[in-house]
Amino acid sequence: MPFEIQAEIASFGGKLFKLAHQSTETTTPMAVNLFLPPQALTNLTNPSSASSKTKVPLLIYLSGLTCTPNNCSEKGFFQHRASALGLAILYPDTSPRGLNYPGESDAWDFGVGAGFYLDAVQPPWNKGYRMASYISRELPDTLFGDPKFGAVLDQERVSITGHSMGGHGALTAYLREPGRYRSVSAFAPVANPSRCAWGRKAFGGYLGGEEEEGGGKWKEYDATELVKGWKGGDLKALVDVGTEDGFYKQGQLLPENLEKAAKEAGVEGLTVRYQEGYDHSYYFMATFADDHVNHAAKHLGLL
Amino acid sequence: MPFEIQAEIASFGGKLFKLAHQSTETTTPMAVNLFLPPQALTNLTNPSSASSKTKVPLLIYLSGLTCTPNNCSEKGFFQHRASALGLAILYPDTSPRGLNYPGESDAWDFGVGAGFYLDAVQPPWNKGYRMASYISRELPDTLFGDPKFGAVLDQERVSITGHSMGGHGALTAYLREPGRYRSVSAFAPVANPSRCAWGRKAFGGYLGGEEEEGGGKWKEYDATELVKGWKGGDLKALVDVGTEDGFYKQGQLLPENLEKAAKEAGVEGLTVRYQEGYDHSYYFMATFADDHVNHAAKHLGLL
Repeated sequence: MPFEIQAEIASFGGKLFKLAHQSTETTTPMAVNLFLPPQALTNLTNPSSASSKTKVPLLIYLSGLTCTPNNCSEKGFFQHRASALGLAILYPDTSPRGLNYPGESDAWDFGVGAGFYLDAVQPPWNKGYRMASYISRELPDTLFGDPKFGAVLDQERVSITGHSMGGHGALTAYLREPGRYRSVSAFAPVANPSRCAWGRKAFGGYLGGEEEEGGGKWKEYDATELVKGWKGGDLKALVDVGTEDGFYKQGQLLPENLEKAAKEAGVEGLTVRYQEGYDHSYYFMATFADDHVNHAAKHLGLL
Repeated sequence: MPFEIQAEIASFGGKLFKLAHQSTETTTPMAVNLFLPPQALTNLTNPSSASSKTKVPLLIYLSGLTCTPNNCSEKGFFQHRASALGLAILYPDTSPRGLNYPGESDAWDFGVGAGFYLDAVQPPWNKGYRMASYISRELPDTLFGDPKFGAVLDQERVSITGHSMGGHGALTAYLREPGRYRSVSAFAPVANPSRCAWGRKAFGGYLGGEEEEGGGKWKEYDATELVKGWKGGDLKALVDVGTEDGFYKQGQLLPENLEKAAKEAGVEGLTVRYQEGYDHSYYFMATFADDHVNHAAKHLGLL
């Protein structure tokens, strides 16, 4: 089923499309924003001109706790550099909305706006809270199969990035399926959720029990655990963390654990940068957005 | 009285300071954001190193209806280019807050968040709604007199810009005092308020009567009227308007009237660009923020 286009907004020479579609994974309507750079707009109006040569690659951006597709579209400034290089950007939502499960909206770090990009196994969350399958399967299949947008996007060239909970989502989606994405990057990611309060609450609720229980499910969604088994070669991963990030200081992010695990596993190609004085906000994101777009562009054949 | 620093946020290599101070013009506490580029931070920590050579120039940005100092700080993208060039940016608020006049918060286009950058003469607004004097006198005097920030800013090099109601504010502040600002620019400005619904409502309420009445006050705050009497030479003015801007289509902005008046008055140096497909939002602002920073920088001796 094609996307319903709810708005078209000119941005940095390209266009931001506010889209909606019915998801079978989440069983709800899902909002998603798609930025197309100027290089893709010609093909959009004249699909016959689209070829594997002129189709643009895609960077998927996963948002953090409480965010919708609009937050980073408005504040992240990915469009600035993506427009110059000819890169499309996809901004999905952070959870199903409207399931109305008991307590679904009681906390900002669990339930609505906090899907943690995993497939839940605990009821009632196992019905609808399937953001891992939504992000890695249903959404790209729908996008690349869309008569309008599928014609201008190169489904062979896709990278992924994200912020905070979305950084966890990007790293785990990448590590779970070597080769599916060309590169990964993350801003202030929850890099070892099994060891932090946010992650333990979410994993306990969605996956069940404690780390040792839950059928080993926790390890399947923890970047620090997944990197230990990485067999995909050079990791092609860039991570930025602000030294004044309150959540980093609280031990919610634990990027050092990811670095240590990668080092001990002999996995190369992980660059973690500690940015002096930066916090957890979109001010931090916007400052380094160009760097993350360049990182993806390099592995997507644009640089 | 120095500013109270409520937050310091790293942004594009510089720092955004969220400030507050008690205003005598508005009779209320006023919030204001100040972005200092990296070039100014050295002087900030070591004031003795500050000299007329190392002090940075200032661009004042006036926000549109309903905005606070945070909207453009987060979404406007001015810090990106200002940081590269060494330009400070000041983001004032759009009205007094907390006077609690009857009906002050009933409408989004009059009262709180809608001060229209004029000095009201009609009671009760004449007490507090004095944004013209606040922006052009009290705020810069307080900033340049501040022991911390005054030491790193060059009060001889100041330009002004703004969006929508703030574009009106920037153009009128500039046109009312030739020589006070080095240059002016505006995004989708309310360019002829005496002839649009927003302006007629605000001027009627704050200044009184109809255009012909109100003691000719309306003309003092209408860029299209003021440009007719401009004696400051080359106007050094850049204006961008989106062709898909709903308010432009409704006749709230009327940039053509400003162009026509300048032309008929023989005033040169006004560049109005109609940006194909752009709307009234911060997506439009962010896209052309670099251009407006460059315009100011050229006249502030940075380019």
